[in-house]
Amino acid sequence: MENFTYCTPTRYIFGTGAENSAGAEATATGITKALIVYGGGSAVRSGVLGRVRGSLSDAGIESVELGGIEPNPLDGPVRTGIDMCRNNGIDGIIAVGGGSVIDTAKAIALGVPYPGDFWDFYAGKATPAVALPVGVVLTIPAAGSEGSGNSVITLSEGKIKISLRTDFVLRPKFALLNPELTFTLPPYQTASGIADMMAHIMERYFTPTPDVEITDRVSEGILKAIIAEAPKVMANPNDYQARANIMWSGTLAHNGICGTGRKEDWASHAIEHEISAMYNVTHGAGLAVIFPAWMTFMAGREPGKIAQFARRVFDVTTTDTTAAAMEGIQCLKSFFGSIGLPVTFAELCLDNPDIPEMVRRLHINKGEVIGGYLPLRAEDTAEIYRLAL
Amino acid sequence: MENFTYCTPTRYIFGTGAENSAGAEATATGITKALIVYGGGSAVRSGVLGRVRGSLSDAGIESVELGGIEPNPLDGPVRTGIDMCRNNGIDGIIAVGGGSVIDTAKAIALGVPYPGDFWDFYAGKATPAVALPVGVVLTIPAAGSEGSGNSVITLSEGKIKISLRTDFVLRPKFALLNPELTFTLPPYQTASGIADMMAHIMERYFTPTPDVEITDRVSEGILKAIIAEAPKVMANPNDYQARANIMWSGTLAHNGICGTGRKEDWASHAIEHEISAMYNVTHGAGLAVIFPAWMTFMAGREPGKIAQFARRVFDVTTTDTTAAAMEGIQCLKSFFGSIGLPVTFAELCLDNPDIPEMVRRLHINKGEVIGGYLPLRAEDTAEIYRLAL
Repeated sequence: MENFTYCTPTRYIFGTGAENSAGAEATATGITKALIVYGGGSAVRSGVLGRVRGSLSDAGIESVELGGIEPNPLDGPVRTGIDMCRNNGIDGIIAVGGGSVIDTAKAIALGVPYPGDFWDFYAGKATPAVALPVGVVLTIPAAGSEGSGNSVITLSEGKIKISLRTDFVLRPKFALLNPELTFTLPPYQTASGIADMMAHIMERYFTPTPDVEITDRVSEGILKAIIAEAPKVMANPNDYQARANIMWSGTLAHNGICGTGRKEDWASHAIEHEISAMYNVTHGAGLAVIFPAWMTFMAGREPGKIAQFARRVFDVTTTDTTAAAMEGIQCLKSFFGSIGLPVTFAELCLDNPDIPEMVRRLHINKGEVIGGYLPLRAEDTAEIYRLAL
Repeated sequence: MENFTYCTPTRYIFGTGAENSAGAEATATGITKALIVYGGGSAVRSGVLGRVRGSLSDAGIESVELGGIEPNPLDGPVRTGIDMCRNNGIDGIIAVGGGSVIDTAKAIALGVPYPGDFWDFYAGKATPAVALPVGVVLTIPAAGSEGSGNSVITLSEGKIKISLRTDFVLRPKFALLNPELTFTLPPYQTASGIADMMAHIMERYFTPTPDVEITDRVSEGILKAIIAEAPKVMANPNDYQARANIMWSGTLAHNGICGTGRKEDWASHAIEHEISAMYNVTHGAGLAVIFPAWMTFMAGREPGKIAQFARRVFDVTTTDTTAAAMEGIQCLKSFFGSIGLPVTFAELCLDNPDIPEMVRRLHINKGEVIGGYLPLRAEDTAEIYRLAL
């Protein structure tokens, strides 16, 4: 186990009606005038946006609104939001949505007090130090951004998708988690969210750091819970208890608890980001394609932890390490398939993805060598893309 | 899953030399003059007290000291500490030790700004709202107080041992966790700490709340990690990695993550508190005696969750529910025995404990009915004490 610092100050309010605490929580956070950020029409139609607006209003908090945030969120709305905040004396941001909305809210929060261009932080030219407080009303359990200090934004020019990671600055002050708000998610989005949260755990689980039994066991436990609850939410989207288990799993998957004391990997996320940036694929679906390919690549080189995953998460009993690893990968693919996810480029309806271009962009954007489990160069990532065909 | 609010703002710094961050962390917390609370001579002899003192001093923080805190800490030193803080203009407390020291520090922190007697909070006559900030340098992984909002103090008069639970007020601002500081713990204390942390998980695991798969799986994972690492620390007290796994497990066991969304039990802790209050038994050793007895009582009445524990934590494969439950209890007893812990009153060298008196005191102190898994009255708790003979 490596030395670490860990702090998750986000205040979680979980359960029915959680969104109605927006006003009280924003007040406790010191927010007096808020920017509400949201995505498409579903937040309006479901009534959640109205309830959040009402809750803020009841607490005496004025608000202005920025809607229309799209999946794989772009820099444009971030700049609009920063201007809106500056022009309206906004002192806090409430994100009503999933990862894209929350990540946009975080980028705005960071940009408002910064005199330069907000992209400087994503480009590594500036270090995040201060930001407006962000509160979250979660409607899509997937990205885990409600509990993380991270934000992923795509620069329209050049389609550069960058994940900015902070320890504390971008962690939401509060997150309101009502499982009922997820009942109306389409099946594909529910399933993609499940793949995304599993990937967040696995990116941390597949580590070169030895002697991390406690973090391994916690990670395996969350994975097992997701695998048990996923078929229930797919079969019955209104199953409150299964939705609740999935929602809380998504937060724990990415609030850092699965990464304490270990080097993390994150190659699969980087490899997937180029797919979703170039082809606008749903991030979780792209991960369901890439992660098994990454694991297959690793099973031939460093199968130990892949085999442990197979044995502990999917109860594989095969004694040979590589065979057990391969069996675990098959179990994972079968699981993804069972909830309606693609596990190959072909199933993503991308029969001829431009692998050389994705590899080129990947290593320009993320560096010559990526990944923590085993370092990967261009020839390796090309092989992983090919294994996903 | 039930609705819940969860927030763990404690900042954990984990690893070698963590105690040397005391000055920087205290400064970041706004502390300018500190009371250092500690236990016996081991903190002095090991040099940790000197390093903490030096770190504070280097950061320009003056300190005064209150040593000699005993296991099962009493109200007397709390009052002394409150007076010391008031007389010296202290604005923060640094606890260097285990649960007893931390709980004393928390009680002092609560008492300083309160005009009445600090025991009012423990007696339920006042509600905790403000306290001085508390920082922790942990030397005994067991009580989990470094990450919890709780404090257990015994009133000398009448030996009334009360656990005060708060959501936020008493959570430490920071906790410095250096596994090396635990190398010198005597085997019995190491083992008792392991039983204590396992009990903290099990008190939450044994719940009447259904549909808590995510929290069950996290709890089972931490238990499995502890069971895997415990023999290593017993065999080799200087095994840094095993000590690190045990130390972080102890924090996760009690920072609330295993209790989210569910009713908790806590009957075994209440039942044990009367043993340690009357006979000054080590708390963890008392729990190793009482928890299997409580489980045996439950296996005859509500065996479902006991059997799940047996199957998932100890890999019991027996199909009959009650038989599986009983087999799991036997595994737990064997495990405790294997690390040198007693599992009966006789093994605690208490051949004739005064059961009627413990039952009488228990229900006077904790109410007519205790426990969340199944409510227990005097005839039930008497039976549990008898099952532990």
